[in-house]
Amino acid sequence: MNLKQDAVRLIQSSLMAALPDTAVKAALAEAKFGSGKLVLVSAGKAGWQMANAAVAALDEMGKKIDRGVVVTKYDHSQGQIPGVTIYEAGHPVPDENSYRATQAAIDAVEGLSADDTVLFLLSGGGSALFEKPLIPAEDLQKLTQELLACGADIVEMNTVRKRFSAVKGGRFAETCAPAKVFVIVLSDVLGDRLDMIASGPAYPDASTAAQARAIVEKYHLTMTAQMKALLQLETPKDLANVETHITGSVRQLCETAAITAKELGYVPLVLTDQLNCVAREAGTFLGNIAKYYADTDRPMAVICGGETVVHLTGHGKGGRNQELALAAAEQIQGLNALVFSVGSDGTDGPTDAAGGMVDGTTCQALKELGISIPAVLQENDAYNALKQVNGLIMTGPTGTNVNDLAVLLIGGEA
Amino acid sequence: MNLKQDAVRLIQSSLMAALPDTAVKAALAEAKFGSGKLVLVSAGKAGWQMANAAVAALDEMGKKIDRGVVVTKYDHSQGQIPGVTIYEAGHPVPDENSYRATQAAIDAVEGLSADDTVLFLLSGGGSALFEKPLIPAEDLQKLTQELLACGADIVEMNTVRKRFSAVKGGRFAETCAPAKVFVIVLSDVLGDRLDMIASGPAYPDASTAAQARAIVEKYHLTMTAQMKALLQLETPKDLANVETHITGSVRQLCETAAITAKELGYVPLVLTDQLNCVAREAGTFLGNIAKYYADTDRPMAVICGGETVVHLTGHGKGGRNQELALAAAEQIQGLNALVFSVGSDGTDGPTDAAGGMVDGTTCQALKELGISIPAVLQENDAYNALKQVNGLIMTGPTGTNVNDLAVLLIGGEA
Repeated sequence: MNLKQDAVRLIQSSLMAALPDTAVKAALAEAKFGSGKLVLVSAGKAGWQMANAAVAALDEMGKKIDRGVVVTKYDHSQGQIPGVTIYEAGHPVPDENSYRATQAAIDAVEGLSADDTVLFLLSGGGSALFEKPLIPAEDLQKLTQELLACGADIVEMNTVRKRFSAVKGGRFAETCAPAKVFVIVLSDVLGDRLDMIASGPAYPDASTAAQARAIVEKYHLTMTAQMKALLQLETPKDLANVETHITGSVRQLCETAAITAKELGYVPLVLTDQLNCVAREAGTFLGNIAKYYADTDRPMAVICGGETVVHLTGHGKGGRNQELALAAAEQIQGLNALVFSVGSDGTDGPTDAAGGMVDGTTCQALKELGISIPAVLQENDAYNALKQVNGLIMTGPTGTNVNDLAVLLIGGEA
Repeated sequence: MNLKQDAVRLIQSSLMAALPDTAVKAALAEAKFGSGKLVLVSAGKAGWQMANAAVAALDEMGKKIDRGVVVTKYDHSQGQIPGVTIYEAGHPVPDENSYRATQAAIDAVEGLSADDTVLFLLSGGGSALFEKPLIPAEDLQKLTQELLACGADIVEMNTVRKRFSAVKGGRFAETCAPAKVFVIVLSDVLGDRLDMIASGPAYPDASTAAQARAIVEKYHLTMTAQMKALLQLETPKDLANVETHITGSVRQLCETAAITAKELGYVPLVLTDQLNCVAREAGTFLGNIAKYYADTDRPMAVICGGETVVHLTGHGKGGRNQELALAAAEQIQGLNALVFSVGSDGTDGPTDAAGGMVDGTTCQALKELGISIPAVLQENDAYNALKQVNGLIMTGPTGTNVNDLAVLLIGGEA
């Protein structure tokens, strides 16, 4: 087993599978299109990239879109796409351009027939970018302020707010009906809760109008006559015209890593795709696992996905993936083991590295340089420590963000 | 699956197997005794209990000891044992009684033949309790002060100090030769590093006289002529007369839990027996694993042993096991899962509880009582929170200490 070489293979294959282009192309291969029109709508921070990849992939399949709308964040468009109108709009706070773009999308999908297909591409940030309020902006703003002031939780806020949206809570897919809607979600939400991704424009709403009214009553929220009327309308609970394909999720990241690890001769074990503890403690935990399995005769790959947390206690340079790896280095000292952690977006914290990689020799190498791991972690300076022992993973920006991948490789008795 | 009931079964079986009486009896069943004399020496905090269990077990096997010496901590003897001289002595700082008891043990094993057997029982605290310096007390004291003052690490300290001991570094076993030495170690050391357990009176010394001399030189330690002479003597590197049986270790704790879990219908997965990260983060990590496997159709038991760490940020009541469980409660909310963590000594922190147990309903139950888990953890007050939701594990003192056992049970889709 060449652990370093295998780690690089794992990183490449997993991140590659999570790239918008790869993910969209793979998802489209499974799409069934009607005989009628094909309309593309793409919303989110990866909106341009997903749309561009889709048009190229459709072209390879001999298909052309009839019309298309992209709404993405300011400065996130990278040029024209044939047949597509591109909007840039406000994120994280929606603005007039968000509403204008969303209206254009609604216009594009209205009046379609059952033979037509809407290809709806969703990525992170879609919640703000894809929005069309049914009430005046000042009423919506007042409601938001009241919800924040009264201490309502995020679920309560969403339950109420989606009642006043023309697209949220599954309403966009309802607008598309009777056309088929093929949704490709590039997920960056832990656990793939579909109704949370962009508040689910094409996903049946799990909350009810009655629940929304109860929250309004509980917090004595101010309602205009128009809002009261909207509170009587139900959101769609069943969207038979929709088929959803989640891709580029952190779960896929883990599963791709597991498949590649197996091909490389490791027994793969995915522990979680929802890691969210403190970065350095996750690294210690992975190192603790390495110690137990160090003398195994079957090489193992222990795989975690998610997004860890860093508590800033110093003023150094680093990121959560680098801290995780560095903390693990202390535990796996002298073992035939390797730990890496990498952000799928290619950027870990405010650094140019995507993450960190350490093995059984890293701790000793740092010691010889007079570098103490606990002191480095206290200073949040993992970048500068790892840099000196060739422990930084550099990928450059990948154009996607489906959380992080942390892997422990155990090579078995050398 | 009745997760709570199964958790109680797991705790009982694992802790029972780690009890000195059970552990000694099981180990003795595998011992081979010579045809000659049988001498018992038992040192450590569980010294009396191990000796008492051994004499009773030997009695059942139709065997009698010829003579025996116990050295344990003050107030840790619980009465006479037939044929055994019992000493109580200083811990953690050795005193004259430690030296007198150790000399009695040396006298008891000197002049034995190859047909004779020494049954040597070791438990935690043996390092201080079983000691006989080869140099005057004031020289040893001065050396210790110098080692502390110069910033030598624990490995360096032990490497030097064992040169001036009549029993450490394998020397006690050397004294027993040519008699066979059957050692039963009741381990409370992470990872079962035998030379660390009571500095290894019956284990070949991995450090050398040359290393000790280098440390003396590095820190300019003061050496008398006698000490200089002792620094020339090598410790035993090979002890063919010794057979060692480690029992009651944290590894055994994990393995017993795995066997019991399997009997109860769970797929067992031991992650580590050397867990040493921050308690609440270990709980979060186990909860993260629960989320990934929540919808499994095969019930799973994820098992960890070790000793986690608590950072005190508040003034509440709790312990590391209770914090681990409470942190997990937030993650497993609503899942068909359970997390418990229990100290094998039956005491978790300065509380009368052995640990904590939570399931998918705990978080909601706490919420309804107006209790916020993050606030409780910040205040280190897990005891009072868990108490209100019936989440404390109460076992009373168990008479052993082989670290903690933390287990996640996933019941599968209900």
